[in-house]
Amino acid sequence: MKIFGDSNSGNCLKVKWVCDHLGLPYGWVEIDTLRGESRTAEFLEINPFGQVPAVDFEDGRTLAQSNAIMRYLARDSDLVPADAFAVARMDAWLFWEQYSHEPYVAVCRFQMVYLGKAAGELDPGLVKRGYAALDQLEQQLSRTRYLLGESFSLADVALLAYTRVAHQGGFDLERHGAVRRWIADGEDVLKLAPVR
Amino acid sequence: MKIFGDSNSGNCLKVKWVCDHLGLPYGWVEIDTLRGESRTAEFLEINPFGQVPAVDFEDGRTLAQSNAIMRYLARDSDLVPADAFAVARMDAWLFWEQYSHEPYVAVCRFQMVYLGKAAGELDPGLVKRGYAALDQLEQQLSRTRYLLGESFSLADVALLAYTRVAHQGGFDLERHGAVRRWIADGEDVLKLAPVR
Repeated sequence: MKIFGDSNSGNCLKVKWVCDHLGLPYGWVEIDTLRGESRTAEFLEINPFGQVPAVDFEDGRTLAQSNAIMRYLARDSDLVPADAFAVARMDAWLFWEQYSHEPYVAVCRFQMVYLGKAAGELDPGLVKRGYAALDQLEQQLSRTRYLLGESFSLADVALLAYTRVAHQGGFDLERHGAVRRWIADGEDVLKLAPVR
Repeated sequence: MKIFGDSNSGNCLKVKWVCDHLGLPYGWVEIDTLRGESRTAEFLEINPFGQVPAVDFEDGRTLAQSNAIMRYLARDSDLVPADAFAVARMDAWLFWEQYSHEPYVAVCRFQMVYLGKAAGELDPGLVKRGYAALDQLEQQLSRTRYLLGESFSLADVALLAYTRVAHQGGFDLERHGAVRRWIADGEDVLKLAPVR
């Protein structure tokens, strides 16, 4: 299996972390999206949508969308609950991440880290919605250790991806003590060094 | 089971369609989001995220996020493939829908239908990305009857929700013959009247 990804992208790292955690072997192909490497004819064969991450199973099958890839790779592991309703709650976090968290927290970080904007140049609407997402996480994580309760799951992997680097997008987690505690716990589970 | 939803919202209708198709009984509670009915203390008990649709199973369990709800309700039905990799491909469409289709096609429609904007007042960036999503659908549906192949699935339900009303957001599907054919087929499966 080959993972095509940008190693500075949270969406791509989700897939890498799941493979590392589960001991799944893979090769990593670095894709520089800013240089158009996700729009070449060769890449579009792997993912017609021109997005990273994408996975090539080298038997003719390919798969895109970080959360769909994680969900497939981890389907029989302890990263996915056994109970169908707990799976549904995990899925709700995964869809919420892509709709209500990533477009704000990750996009602010993208503009600062990739495009070189200063925090003061960010769209205040994006920043406000990013904090709203972080507040939702704080509310849940004040009550439970991980997003689904006592067990670490793909919901945590998905939300950790950009929450742990939110400060690179200008977000100050000072008010978000439970989120900071959860980031440290999640980094322990995934054996990741904290990001400065 | 009670569904809390806005009956003019594609995300909410997805859940209704799945229940109707599978013969699952439910009550519908109409929520007017523009009047703040998704932000009341009572509603936030059902869904702390303040979004519709949300489902109350009336046994203490609640669930949010249209695609997560559909996936749960339809988990043992013919709307979800039996093969794990086909499920992964379905999930890829569901995540793509929320990230790369809904924020453009549905948002343009929202601005026209709910906020009363004219097509010419829409952000050209949103319109461009909406057409890019419709082009991706056209590319797939020129090759296969439904998004996953010969079988109708939740991927089709999710993408039909806003694609069949794309014209209400100013999108002209004249170039998208395969999409128009698929809308008609999907409306047949779900027993829906075409939207003028």
